[in-house]
Amino acid sequence: MARINDNFLKLKAGYLFPEIGRRVAAYTEANADKASTLIRCGIGDVTEALPKAVQEAMHKAVDELGCRDTFRGYGPEQGYGFLREAIADNAFAGLDISADDIFVSDGSKCDTGNILDIFGKGNTIAVTDPVYPVYVDTNVMIGNTGEGDENGRYEGLVYLACTAENDFVPAIPKEKVDIIYLCYPNNPTGASATREQLQAWVDYALKNDAIILYDAAYEAFIQDADVPKSIYEIEGAKECALEFRSFSKNGGFTGVRCGYIVIPDSVFGSTATGEKISIKQLWSRRTSTKFNGASYPVQRGAEAVFSDAGKAEVAALVEHYMGNAALLRTACTELGLKVFGGENAPYVWVACPAGLSSWDMFDKMLSEANVVITPGSGFGAAGEGYFRISAFNSRANVEEVCKRLKALL
Amino acid sequence: MARINDNFLKLKAGYLFPEIGRRVAAYTEANADKASTLIRCGIGDVTEALPKAVQEAMHKAVDELGCRDTFRGYGPEQGYGFLREAIADNAFAGLDISADDIFVSDGSKCDTGNILDIFGKGNTIAVTDPVYPVYVDTNVMIGNTGEGDENGRYEGLVYLACTAENDFVPAIPKEKVDIIYLCYPNNPTGASATREQLQAWVDYALKNDAIILYDAAYEAFIQDADVPKSIYEIEGAKECALEFRSFSKNGGFTGVRCGYIVIPDSVFGSTATGEKISIKQLWSRRTSTKFNGASYPVQRGAEAVFSDAGKAEVAALVEHYMGNAALLRTACTELGLKVFGGENAPYVWVACPAGLSSWDMFDKMLSEANVVITPGSGFGAAGEGYFRISAFNSRANVEEVCKRLKALL
Repeated sequence: MARINDNFLKLKAGYLFPEIGRRVAAYTEANADKASTLIRCGIGDVTEALPKAVQEAMHKAVDELGCRDTFRGYGPEQGYGFLREAIADNAFAGLDISADDIFVSDGSKCDTGNILDIFGKGNTIAVTDPVYPVYVDTNVMIGNTGEGDENGRYEGLVYLACTAENDFVPAIPKEKVDIIYLCYPNNPTGASATREQLQAWVDYALKNDAIILYDAAYEAFIQDADVPKSIYEIEGAKECALEFRSFSKNGGFTGVRCGYIVIPDSVFGSTATGEKISIKQLWSRRTSTKFNGASYPVQRGAEAVFSDAGKAEVAALVEHYMGNAALLRTACTELGLKVFGGENAPYVWVACPAGLSSWDMFDKMLSEANVVITPGSGFGAAGEGYFRISAFNSRANVEEVCKRLKALL
Repeated sequence: MARINDNFLKLKAGYLFPEIGRRVAAYTEANADKASTLIRCGIGDVTEALPKAVQEAMHKAVDELGCRDTFRGYGPEQGYGFLREAIADNAFAGLDISADDIFVSDGSKCDTGNILDIFGKGNTIAVTDPVYPVYVDTNVMIGNTGEGDENGRYEGLVYLACTAENDFVPAIPKEKVDIIYLCYPNNPTGASATREQLQAWVDYALKNDAIILYDAAYEAFIQDADVPKSIYEIEGAKECALEFRSFSKNGGFTGVRCGYIVIPDSVFGSTATGEKISIKQLWSRRTSTKFNGASYPVQRGAEAVFSDAGKAEVAALVEHYMGNAALLRTACTELGLKVFGGENAPYVWVACPAGLSSWDMFDKMLSEANVVITPGSGFGAAGEGYFRISAFNSRANVEEVCKRLKALL
């Protein structure tokens, strides 16, 4: 019989969000009268309309495909030049990132999982705790870990604790690791990393010949001018870091699907015999063999995010969501809860009221306030005792959540 | 230093189509005067406009995303119910395939590569020769092979020769294999498999507990009512086969991007300890962890392929391309060449004139006829001495290719 990949059997319970979905479905089935007033602040999914500039660009691209003379079939696997150039010129202006360093995809979740294809066995891999579960689960699936324990921690991974004490930016590890996942602004804690903190990580990576996988999917939400928007603002990062970006949260592309990876020429890995190999060359080969490019109308939509009209609309969306975050922060603070994040990120990270675990708080919010949040422990053992509220919602819903929180606690 | 996946270094020269692209670019640079009359019959990329029904559905979906009340963010990773149901009801009517068996993706190239994530090490894997290069290269990349030889054959793979003698449908192997890639209508040979031939393969798979990965990306081009359009028309296939389908060639989605895999509940693999595990369960987990669903407007476009208007337009496109194939067949036959395929597939597979290798013929056609074809040897050692002409083109271009062939030979 064909052998399956046994590593899949090490995976715990199921990805966090399907489990939340299961509990919410069971609740709404038992409480049909409350379903219409349920407010979802769980999964970090945008709620507002797609920017007009993006719509127009997508309409135009569909029309192009509808005409024989302007029809386009297979595009370049790495993405169209028009989009790669728009990204380099706008998202990385002044950072010496070229169009050739950009690999366009159908989203960051895919990219952060697929990137493991090009790495070998035997790397020591570090993740933060709490962590976006995809980083961990994809390492489990590909065989980079041993078994998981009762806290969901897997043998073989190095967990870097993110706590209130270290402002949710992990301390540089004493051991040598080869690959490090960092995500700032952070999902789930909403923390941002300072220039000094990132410089320390880049220095560590250069000293240890490590590679940083830097997830900057939430960079658009940074409000503080001192907080770096890209890892490439840090001296030396072009020699040790890849950066993952997405149009999901700024342009509202969670259903449209587009993201990209930045891979400078100067990042290298090593073969078993110690030969240095360009990471970009490997990813380019992986992309041309296993991918056929993102959808053409989607790439035109993404390009429009960088038009003047698109930029203005994205700025308004960010302002809206960050206004929500401020309201949620204030409401939780006024209730005497310890509140983190929500200032440079669309997530507010809150310590549970005394005596409540993360899932206790999830169940309490669901059954007593009719609000879906995300339990912190779903992101890792160090997330226990916290919950995450997503600021992706209408203003009216966020105001209602603030009211319900006050009534509940 | 982070270790790379050394298997990538086993890959030969580069994927076939980039190599063709390189030669064509060098030629057009040296012969700028001929660039405007160059005719491309190389890569199997559609040329005609996207069906109106698809355009309308995509426009409507973009408008939905442009309105807060009808906005959709993250969709189900496995695809929207509306599309999975349309596929089950239309593409598999009467075959007892349910919406739940369908996993929608951004294309078949991705699917045929990604499916290897869920299989383990130690499987004996069979591919045809000639073969769609993605099957081989993705097995190399994931470590399922040894080194390649000078013919591009990799140690550890079982190659099933497809020759004029066996009508390009391989004989059942004497040895036991665990996973078999079959593609009918075939890329590159244009051959189709009869019911009896497929039944023999399914019987072999059931007897040997093997899994068939059946690529039916070209099923829309089948003209002969006796040729099976799906592997599930074959008794027993639901216990041993996955089927890969695409909207690329019927709906003209090569730039729009949508495909799907069919995985019935009754296909199983085995763990190291012999436990039977559902392939669907594994793929579902892989999909929810490493994918975020195909683009919503794209899924609405794909749904429209099954509308009455969409079906009529697809039928007209197929008739157009198959009319091209008939002209190419006739022209080559009249020149005394041995001609295969092109009757149930949009590819015509032709034996090279005596004394010419596949790449000789490629270079001759490029430099003397200003026409791009695909060298058969690019698909495997058994493809040497053949070339493939794609029927995806305008009628005028195909007529011109026929003229130039006659002038050349």
